[in-house]
Amino acid sequence: MRGNCIVAQSGGPTAVINASACGVIQAAFESSKIVGVYGAHNGILGVVNERIFDLGREKPQTIEGLRHTPAAALGSCRYKVKTEEDFAAIVEVFKKYDIRYFFYIGGNDSMDTADKVNRLAESQGYEFCAMGVPKTVDNDLALTDHCPGYGSVTKYLATMTMEAGRDTEALYTTDTVNVIEAMGRNAGWIAAGASLAKRASEDAPHIILLPEVPFDETAFTRKVAEWVDNIGRCVVVVSEGTRYSDGSYVSEQKGDFATDAFGHVQLGGAASFIKNLVERDVKVKSRYAFPSTIQRCGAHFASETDCQEAYMVGRRAVELAMTGENGKMVTLVRTGDNPYQCTTGAESLSEVANGEKLFPAEWITEDGFGVTQEFVDYARPLIQGEVSVPMKDGLPDFMRFEKYFI
Amino acid sequence: MRGNCIVAQSGGPTAVINASACGVIQAAFESSKIVGVYGAHNGILGVVNERIFDLGREKPQTIEGLRHTPAAALGSCRYKVKTEEDFAAIVEVFKKYDIRYFFYIGGNDSMDTADKVNRLAESQGYEFCAMGVPKTVDNDLALTDHCPGYGSVTKYLATMTMEAGRDTEALYTTDTVNVIEAMGRNAGWIAAGASLAKRASEDAPHIILLPEVPFDETAFTRKVAEWVDNIGRCVVVVSEGTRYSDGSYVSEQKGDFATDAFGHVQLGGAASFIKNLVERDVKVKSRYAFPSTIQRCGAHFASETDCQEAYMVGRRAVELAMTGENGKMVTLVRTGDNPYQCTTGAESLSEVANGEKLFPAEWITEDGFGVTQEFVDYARPLIQGEVSVPMKDGLPDFMRFEKYFI
Repeated sequence: MRGNCIVAQSGGPTAVINASACGVIQAAFESSKIVGVYGAHNGILGVVNERIFDLGREKPQTIEGLRHTPAAALGSCRYKVKTEEDFAAIVEVFKKYDIRYFFYIGGNDSMDTADKVNRLAESQGYEFCAMGVPKTVDNDLALTDHCPGYGSVTKYLATMTMEAGRDTEALYTTDTVNVIEAMGRNAGWIAAGASLAKRASEDAPHIILLPEVPFDETAFTRKVAEWVDNIGRCVVVVSEGTRYSDGSYVSEQKGDFATDAFGHVQLGGAASFIKNLVERDVKVKSRYAFPSTIQRCGAHFASETDCQEAYMVGRRAVELAMTGENGKMVTLVRTGDNPYQCTTGAESLSEVANGEKLFPAEWITEDGFGVTQEFVDYARPLIQGEVSVPMKDGLPDFMRFEKYFI
Repeated sequence: MRGNCIVAQSGGPTAVINASACGVIQAAFESSKIVGVYGAHNGILGVVNERIFDLGREKPQTIEGLRHTPAAALGSCRYKVKTEEDFAAIVEVFKKYDIRYFFYIGGNDSMDTADKVNRLAESQGYEFCAMGVPKTVDNDLALTDHCPGYGSVTKYLATMTMEAGRDTEALYTTDTVNVIEAMGRNAGWIAAGASLAKRASEDAPHIILLPEVPFDETAFTRKVAEWVDNIGRCVVVVSEGTRYSDGSYVSEQKGDFATDAFGHVQLGGAASFIKNLVERDVKVKSRYAFPSTIQRCGAHFASETDCQEAYMVGRRAVELAMTGENGKMVTLVRTGDNPYQCTTGAESLSEVANGEKLFPAEWITEDGFGVTQEFVDYARPLIQGEVSVPMKDGLPDFMRFEKYFI
């Protein structure tokens, strides 16, 4: 099948989602079956609105620069395609521009969108191929060992925790407790990753709060007091999704912007809540940090392993499409532990779309405030190495597309 | 004068305050006049409480490791020496351990403490030398061109702003405005530093809020709306010290956002306030980040220039003491702009202690929402180069003293 291809990015950015785009684009350029290589501006929204630009006109060094540029250079979106009309309109745009290959880099929702578009095209007898490329800092996609983006957010958050831990260690006589809020609405993968910062028992983090463990204020403040008594300080990493046993989040925002486009409750403020709780009940001064989106786009300290794997899954999506695969998401398959080895697999888009990988209960310590060595062994290989970022005038030199719209 | 020396660190840590300690300690080891080289645990508190440890027993590679370890390895404090009795007790401890040289690494308060201890020792006829080593991310010390610590916080915050700016650029259709809170209670130096992230007009930050400019809600929200209209997004860097014309901090959170879940007045939430203001008045969704102490201890991406200068002022304090200088703080003196050149000077502790360097009014743009090229030219040299941090298992390898208490 010969024709044009579209690559698009969706959902919350990561430090390495552009590395996946680079893999797709470079492999697409090399394919004799792919004629034009196009980018959709802001994910599926770019298809809906026919905001499509020609990646063939971008400089090769711009494409290569994707490997060290954070966020989504093609533009991203959180637009949920809902109606039959919307899906039909998307297929019409693909037909109009003779798009035969669609590479969608994203999470569950994106895999679902790609799958539905693909089925509709097939039902209309339009020769088409949709392939998914996994991306999410949340590490919650089903059927893949881990997700590109997770290694980098983990490396960065663990480093922040290590550094903030040293800060608290220095100034514990005044600022005794420090609380750092990690992303992760439903799964505790990111917060758990902070545990890699711990080499000695006195190292931060001392307590990790996961969404998977019902929050118990009394047990928690008792644990904080225990650390303060023992070493004079305590660093807590709290997942934004931490909730009580009744399912309510420790901090839910209210008002006009309480939910996002998907109806998800917007979180934020777990750390400030925990800080206040510590000050009220443990009666020591606490600080907190809310790194928010900063943690997911830390390209200046991204994991080289993560970046290479992100590039690999992007390339592989194109290679598989060229051999006739269709309706699949490329997965990461761990084939060795010592040394760590990883290759790619492929799973059906619909199965990935309907799954969710929660943090394994058996990787949570008995008291619920930490994670086990099994988790550390799982996560440690994913943060190895540092991406070499070109610098200019003392700061990273990121690329930006010219975006030649067609 | 022969005798022992004490080195101590005080106040909020930085990414390079340990590099200054390294400079002091290594130079002290080389001096034939200095017998024992001791560390005070947690600044002047360590002297008061006689928590003093022998740095001569630490491994040389531990001392060298100070150059890339964040926070204060000797321990820090915010203890303010107030009474005559306290000062007298400190001098008694110095006499007891035959301390003849006191090197205090800190900000205004520390210089004041060192000065007063020095004068008291002199009045008692105790041969003594107190030298100050500048340190503060706030960059507000008088009589020095800039302060060690400032270059690194600026490099890191500008990088965060750049990365978060790319995140907003990718996802502006959902998260249109992003607000990042910078440290700086009284002076806008740190927030201003974020401006280095801007290379093109569309780059973040789009608006900077400084404590020096009275906050005008209407003018601000109009400016945000202007950016959103023009480029679809807006990244704001707000100084924690941003205040209204009546002097009250925006972070005191009046009105709708005044209290937290416990009914406490919210402090230190300038970014969360601005986020809420934007959502209410500009009617677009906003996110915010509060990197808090994380920004000041980012050793993994510290400025090499800053680190070298921090080391240099530490060494120089000892060298000057050996030539008979006393009661001085080492300063940084800019001797060339193109190329940037910097050497050291020395100013009296009391003059430094009583001064404060505010952000120059002439470096603020006319509309009050940005800084001028003159500021950029001043700050740019301070963020050049990256400290090479040894890595272990994918994360920085920081040192920690054994602390052999005497």
